[in-house]
Amino acid sequence: MSSTIGVDVGGTKIAAGVVAEDGSVVEKVRRDTPADDVTAVAGTIVELVRELREHHQVESVGVGAAGWISADRATVLFAPNLSWRDEPLRDRVEEEVGIPVIVENDANAAAWGEFRFGAGADCDDMLFVTVGTGVGGGVVVDGELMRGTFGVAAEIGHFRVVPGGHLCGCGRLGCFEQYASGTALVRAARERVEADPQSAPLMRAAHGDIDRIDGPMITELARANDPFCVDLLGDLGTWLGEGIASLAAVLDPGLVAIGGGVAEAGDLLMQRTRKAFLATLPGVDHRPHLVMRLATLGNEAGLIGAADLSRAERR
Amino acid sequence: MSSTIGVDVGGTKIAAGVVAEDGSVVEKVRRDTPADDVTAVAGTIVELVRELREHHQVESVGVGAAGWISADRATVLFAPNLSWRDEPLRDRVEEEVGIPVIVENDANAAAWGEFRFGAGADCDDMLFVTVGTGVGGGVVVDGELMRGTFGVAAEIGHFRVVPGGHLCGCGRLGCFEQYASGTALVRAARERVEADPQSAPLMRAAHGDIDRIDGPMITELARANDPFCVDLLGDLGTWLGEGIASLAAVLDPGLVAIGGGVAEAGDLLMQRTRKAFLATLPGVDHRPHLVMRLATLGNEAGLIGAADLSRAERR
Repeated sequence: MSSTIGVDVGGTKIAAGVVAEDGSVVEKVRRDTPADDVTAVAGTIVELVRELREHHQVESVGVGAAGWISADRATVLFAPNLSWRDEPLRDRVEEEVGIPVIVENDANAAAWGEFRFGAGADCDDMLFVTVGTGVGGGVVVDGELMRGTFGVAAEIGHFRVVPGGHLCGCGRLGCFEQYASGTALVRAARERVEADPQSAPLMRAAHGDIDRIDGPMITELARANDPFCVDLLGDLGTWLGEGIASLAAVLDPGLVAIGGGVAEAGDLLMQRTRKAFLATLPGVDHRPHLVMRLATLGNEAGLIGAADLSRAERR
Repeated sequence: MSSTIGVDVGGTKIAAGVVAEDGSVVEKVRRDTPADDVTAVAGTIVELVRELREHHQVESVGVGAAGWISADRATVLFAPNLSWRDEPLRDRVEEEVGIPVIVENDANAAAWGEFRFGAGADCDDMLFVTVGTGVGGGVVVDGELMRGTFGVAAEIGHFRVVPGGHLCGCGRLGCFEQYASGTALVRAARERVEADPQSAPLMRAAHGDIDRIDGPMITELARANDPFCVDLLGDLGTWLGEGIASLAAVLDPGLVAIGGGVAEAGDLLMQRTRKAFLATLPGVDHRPHLVMRLATLGNEAGLIGAADLSRAERR
């Protein structure tokens, strides 16, 4: 049985793991991301790969990175958080490790992981939505990752849901991720706390400091049935379901898997997401219905997917 | 060289043609659509096929119809204009003609026609947008028509562009086709004529009757540089370009081909469409650019595409 290494390059941590053919993670190592030193990222990836290869035979390396990756899976065209611009990451790593390397967008890699070994293992067409700081996604069409002509398909966080809406980090107005992400959740909370007396428990949790409000705080209170926080998550779920309805009109997937940090809210998010999806899907009474469920691989999805994508038969 | 028959079932006419392997239409026949008698549509298709087979050897029949078609290309799940509901159109026609038949959504068929023999013949990933009474579309991913799990992919007229926007024929609010179709063009004209003195030429063309304003009238005046009509088409182009930017964020096609009746306005539409696309596409400075061009097969695209899809190797 041949193993491959998957690497997940995040804004704060780089995780690397040896992944078996069945998707199981055999060993995993982590380092801090040298975020202000772009060239050092490749070096850290190389170190992690070397460390893992001391005890494991591996055939290839797949790197998942938050950014736009070229169609040939070699170059990071643009990475908002790591200030990579046209970075030849594949070649930099490949030269050092001496085995084949591919680079893939992190959400695409996670989508692939879920498709192969997680929530989507029983379908052919899947939309993966990851709801964290932003909204990312990956699309599987007929058993293949939809990469697009230029490698930048499935940037679902940036389809426009509100003309003239909130300014997005991408420079445009009204992007989906400005309404359905953890960032949107926290912004909504901060906007509403002053006017709503029901926000008292959240303000207590934040020690009276509006800037200390964060997503996990809201989820935790919502789990304890705090009505203010239940509403906040419900409203996020509504935006999420409405956006997914639009995406389903275009993609017609059999399954939608929802992952990312915010998805840890589970039913508090999903009930409203499903309801809004059904209330917004065009022709809902005249079409078979997709399945919507939570992703199952957690934050290992990207690492597992990248490792699997690097296998010879998929490159 | 083997030929196939393509049939295009429209709201007013049914057109059928013998199509050669190179996409050329060898002979074409037409009848009125018996719109109020659903079962008669299948009968008319059969008659047209028989008529064409009197002088041509054909191996199969492809039918393009405005509606949602099942994943197995056999059943019309729902057709807004022809009141078909779960109509087993493939079997009805196949029983009578005795050669293989497939049914496909009309916009998907047209997309395939353009991909194989028209505007998209030089690419692998294409988004086809047809702008007529509504907005339809078809998506080609890696050389294959994206049909979705249930056969209803690429319903791009019904992704939502304005929350709480105009009511759509599909029952939802704010669908793309309520802003970027011929119907939207005429609605905008009627809304603006009274308040805008520049509308005088359009009102003259409509003999003073606001209800007689139609799309071709607006296009014709715009071609003669009438500023009111130039603006109307320009605004439609803006919505179109903005919507395509959202779709490109999701699909990342190498080519967008724009067809349908409204596309006959050519540059009057396309200049503003391109401008709005570039002004709205996320990360426009960090990604290679797609090509946007007019479709080339006109109203034969659907017939040609359906005929080609019916070939044995594609069924």
